[in-house]
Amino acid sequence: MSSNDKIWTAGLVVIGDEILSGRTHDKNIAQVASWLQVQGIRLSEVRVVPDVEDRIVEAVNALREAYDYLFTTGGIGPTHDDITVDAVSKALGVPAVVHPEARAILERYYADKPGGLTEARLRMARAPEGSTLIPNKRSGAPGMRRGNVFLMAGVPHITAGMLDALTGTLEGGAPLIAETVGCWIAESEVAGLLREVEKAHQNCQIGSYPFFREGKVGANFVIRSTDKVDLQSCVDTLCDGLATSGYDFTPGGI
Amino acid sequence: MSSNDKIWTAGLVVIGDEILSGRTHDKNIAQVASWLQVQGIRLSEVRVVPDVEDRIVEAVNALREAYDYLFTTGGIGPTHDDITVDAVSKALGVPAVVHPEARAILERYYADKPGGLTEARLRMARAPEGSTLIPNKRSGAPGMRRGNVFLMAGVPHITAGMLDALTGTLEGGAPLIAETVGCWIAESEVAGLLREVEKAHQNCQIGSYPFFREGKVGANFVIRSTDKVDLQSCVDTLCDGLATSGYDFTPGGI
Repeated sequence: MSSNDKIWTAGLVVIGDEILSGRTHDKNIAQVASWLQVQGIRLSEVRVVPDVEDRIVEAVNALREAYDYLFTTGGIGPTHDDITVDAVSKALGVPAVVHPEARAILERYYADKPGGLTEARLRMARAPEGSTLIPNKRSGAPGMRRGNVFLMAGVPHITAGMLDALTGTLEGGAPLIAETVGCWIAESEVAGLLREVEKAHQNCQIGSYPFFREGKVGANFVIRSTDKVDLQSCVDTLCDGLATSGYDFTPGGI
Repeated sequence: MSSNDKIWTAGLVVIGDEILSGRTHDKNIAQVASWLQVQGIRLSEVRVVPDVEDRIVEAVNALREAYDYLFTTGGIGPTHDDITVDAVSKALGVPAVVHPEARAILERYYADKPGGLTEARLRMARAPEGSTLIPNKRSGAPGMRRGNVFLMAGVPHITAGMLDALTGTLEGGAPLIAETVGCWIAESEVAGLLREVEKAHQNCQIGSYPFFREGKVGANFVIRSTDKVDLQSCVDTLCDGLATSGYDFTPGGI
């Protein structure tokens, strides 16, 4: 495999009791996953852990070693349950320190707000020693990067802003591209065809995603590859196979 | 701690490339989490892994040993990318076999459907040897339980039916109950108060969940406990503290 073919990978640690209690529906997994695809980086594993230091340390250390990049969401706010900076610092073996640039950002941000830069708000200027900042245009308090570890907010629209700021700055490989073909049939009717077509196209994976809508069963078949030509060839073979078997299909998916 | 005080825990392994690619927004984490709360079982960790056997085996073995129960969602359908039964069988060290009862269910279900019980559909009757079935009233193919491991569908409304079938059948402890108090303030204004109130109520945790709506910042404070009396006392102390500081608050949350 040449260095051009390297598959770049990432892990994600979602931190927060609110996800594990079912109170908050996570939106960051899908958001980070989609963004990584465009950067040519494959999200390879996600762990959701509670607001407990040891559990965060364990997950961060496991995933930062296993993958090229490690992202965290959640736990970088001003309150007592925001312990991500401390936990990640512990995982990295460095102290958590007030980052001068983050402090300056917060001083400006809170200058005209009631209370100003309180002790609680100053917590949001803390970072693992040696971090650089990830800008946050939406609410002042920045994310942080140290080595291959990226600490981001838990509130989805703030996370989105931090991802925007990181766009194009991380080395990745060829993005995984995908085409979808939809069919109003039970996926089990074409299971053999899907298996054969995938086997005949080494650089492609086919995923089958059944659904039940408008009182009918159907499925979307998603063909993924890093190679455009291989992808198109696989899509064509699948569509030919569906047509030969007498099934109508919808390019682009249903 | 008496046996009545035992905290029952569960892990969840979400299986599927479609979640890690961002194509599908997972709904099962929140659904399983909320259901477990009612059963008096705490969801303690979630891992999302791709459709790769070794990765499923690793996650299943880690979580089934760490927690009282282990649930999986996804990968039990009829197509080539449905490998959960094989992976979990490998993790448990037993063969994957056709379950006679599951076969009978599928024979009845497909009797009047085009194609009948094909080889692909029969894959859905396979289970780790020694499993019992989890009924699926919505689409025939059942889930499976073996020991503390529960294999469920990936399609959320089918997963919901399987959870319904399991309701009240698993031993759990006192359910974690929660009360929410909402405030149109930046959480950083009351970070000190939240910390103090939590410290004064040992059996309670307070989570702070900021939001930005209608052009204003606000936060919901969620107080959780297994004890109703402690919970109410903690809520009262927090509300008194907010009132004393001159903040309006909304019982039940915003």
